[in-house]
Amino acid sequence: MTKKRHLLTAQSGGPTAAINASLAGVIRAGVESDAIGHVYGAVHGIEGVLHDRLLLLDNLDTDLLQQTPAAYLGSCRNKLPNPEEAPEVYEKIFALFAKYDIGYFLYIGGNDSMDTVCKLSGYAAAHNLDVSIIGIPKTIDNDLEITDHTPGFGSAAKYIATTVSEIAQDSRVYYLQSVTIIEIMGRHAGWLTAAAALARNAESNAPHLIYLPEVEFSKEQFIADLRDKFAQGVNNIIVAVSEGVKDKNGQFICEDENTAKDVFGHKMLSGAGKVLERWVAAELGCKVRSVELNVSQRCAGHILSKTDIDEAFAIGAAGAEAAIQGETGKMMVFRRICNSPYRIEISSTPITGIANLEKKVPGEFLQGNHDVSEAMLHYLRPLIAGEVNVRYQNGLPVYLYRPRFQRL
Amino acid sequence: MTKKRHLLTAQSGGPTAAINASLAGVIRAGVESDAIGHVYGAVHGIEGVLHDRLLLLDNLDTDLLQQTPAAYLGSCRNKLPNPEEAPEVYEKIFALFAKYDIGYFLYIGGNDSMDTVCKLSGYAAAHNLDVSIIGIPKTIDNDLEITDHTPGFGSAAKYIATTVSEIAQDSRVYYLQSVTIIEIMGRHAGWLTAAAALARNAESNAPHLIYLPEVEFSKEQFIADLRDKFAQGVNNIIVAVSEGVKDKNGQFICEDENTAKDVFGHKMLSGAGKVLERWVAAELGCKVRSVELNVSQRCAGHILSKTDIDEAFAIGAAGAEAAIQGETGKMMVFRRICNSPYRIEISSTPITGIANLEKKVPGEFLQGNHDVSEAMLHYLRPLIAGEVNVRYQNGLPVYLYRPRFQRL
Repeated sequence: MTKKRHLLTAQSGGPTAAINASLAGVIRAGVESDAIGHVYGAVHGIEGVLHDRLLLLDNLDTDLLQQTPAAYLGSCRNKLPNPEEAPEVYEKIFALFAKYDIGYFLYIGGNDSMDTVCKLSGYAAAHNLDVSIIGIPKTIDNDLEITDHTPGFGSAAKYIATTVSEIAQDSRVYYLQSVTIIEIMGRHAGWLTAAAALARNAESNAPHLIYLPEVEFSKEQFIADLRDKFAQGVNNIIVAVSEGVKDKNGQFICEDENTAKDVFGHKMLSGAGKVLERWVAAELGCKVRSVELNVSQRCAGHILSKTDIDEAFAIGAAGAEAAIQGETGKMMVFRRICNSPYRIEISSTPITGIANLEKKVPGEFLQGNHDVSEAMLHYLRPLIAGEVNVRYQNGLPVYLYRPRFQRL
Repeated sequence: MTKKRHLLTAQSGGPTAAINASLAGVIRAGVESDAIGHVYGAVHGIEGVLHDRLLLLDNLDTDLLQQTPAAYLGSCRNKLPNPEEAPEVYEKIFALFAKYDIGYFLYIGGNDSMDTVCKLSGYAAAHNLDVSIIGIPKTIDNDLEITDHTPGFGSAAKYIATTVSEIAQDSRVYYLQSVTIIEIMGRHAGWLTAAAALARNAESNAPHLIYLPEVEFSKEQFIADLRDKFAQGVNNIIVAVSEGVKDKNGQFICEDENTAKDVFGHKMLSGAGKVLERWVAAELGCKVRSVELNVSQRCAGHILSKTDIDEAFAIGAAGAEAAIQGETGKMMVFRRICNSPYRIEISSTPITGIANLEKKVPGEFLQGNHDVSEAMLHYLRPLIAGEVNVRYQNGLPVYLYRPRFQRL
């Protein structure tokens, strides 16, 4: 029997509502494998590896972990230098791996994290170091290449569609004509904003206008679109707009020249929603308000997509199993086998082809200058399906907290 | 057997997540009463009465109605003139009541709506008109006098506490010191902001600072409070602030003199949260962000307090029953019999003593300049208890939509 080695995992990048479900999957697969001794977690991503800040995760309540939003282990925004520029960083990391006899490193994160997986696995191969290194994708932005979608996106999409449908209800109570602008995350890709379209149903066509960063944004066209909707008899217009919409010069709308300055003359960046709100007030003079959905998009643990959480768990577990089988330098991906009934398969793909690429919304998912296509809705619908029966105590969802750090 | 007369109901004021549960209670009690013929609803509050816009509600799906946020019947912001100033308004209203043989009018709303109940019932008494007129309170602000609390507040409080706890999770993922400012509704009373304190538990003391409009707000004290928290070792400070905090001159902080102006020199009102964010950036220079919880506070149908929804239904039904018993010129109220186990009773109180009064947070519910007391938490806890098993379809909560209006 071969000697058991240990598994180390960490989280990186922005929080999501599903990244802890992937962590739960990694832990469960590690604990259940005969090849694995202990499962450790590094606190604050690769920073925790560099500073020897590890927690023992063998006995964590993985059920509660799955419904806990944000990154249980803490996160970081560290992009590793190239090995030739800073070999000491890599020596330190692999010394830590050696110290704890880590045979498997699972890194759960977004684009920067996949860059880390790419560099670490490359270094290990070049130096003949026996550590399997696998990346587990996560990002609410859904902007990773090759994988059909990313864990975390489905829950964010469900939160957005639900909230948009509720704000539409709220906007309909008064008789007055009104415009409600909802600003949605996604600086470079419009996947999250597109998810607002899921709020539509047989009774309501809200959101009536959808603006993604993939389509050039024009103030004149926007005002014309609103006038059209009013002319068509829509009384309470709901607009879903990406924070990242840009004008024909490629400048972010939220950096518009009319952006206000504070008393010191500093430009005060307000969101795209506020800029659009000011335009509507000035040009149409009707009742207008803007709502920024903000960080709840990535941490609303109380409204999770069961599909997303189950898949996030499964891809974490599959990543751990792939590492245990000796795979390295890979990212785990989803491939959609069938849309109806919805079925995916999980596999691994070489990390070198993925890191630092950004997946934008393709043309066939767009419709005109202010809507998404039926193909986009087909793509999105399965991802928000199902509800997680979240555990409550004293009227509030119960979330898991990381204990105060103590060196192992 | 006395001749059956009909019951008319309407909704007014800002939306809440529970106002439709009260409507459901009114409908159910009306439909089940032998004294009642039909239950009608006026569209857009008293405006619908003035313009003869009624819907028949007898067969509405009251289960689905109960989980639907905002005002199903539509709302208005109409404050009636005094009868002596505009008798024609009252003649028109009572002519409509006569046309449809309305014997009972149930008005569900906030302060202005209770003013309407007061004036209409006074007019009916003065003119010997046989219509029983009862007010059903609702407001997320919880600022009505005499009643222990208002329907709609509990669900808003649950949404706020949940979201604050999730944003606190989100703020803890990075190692950096940070300040997160959460702006909460309540222009004149701090009940909703106080509800943020419910997010605290054995593992987390967030929100660490709570500022209500009932306490004078000082920029210097605020910055000192933050420095204290950092000095105490709190790394990621969560601040809950009411949109309505005021300085020592009684001026709203969100109208601070440093408020930015747009290119036309117009003052751009930004919320209190944004003002505080700018102060923190300028004075402390640490990572800071602000989040405005916005309209979701009053329309988050996907996370309801079961206590709130059940009580909202019960007070609507009790109001209809009181009207059928011949009571008039009353508002229905909650009285808290016992806190543990929590028990309330519903009764009616003369409307004249209530309309146009505002209930602020009393001194014993405050603690120092930036917190609420244990007595406040005792008061709040039962109001967010229990979850409503919301019906979902295609991954989203199902809400009821008012049909297109057709004259009866």
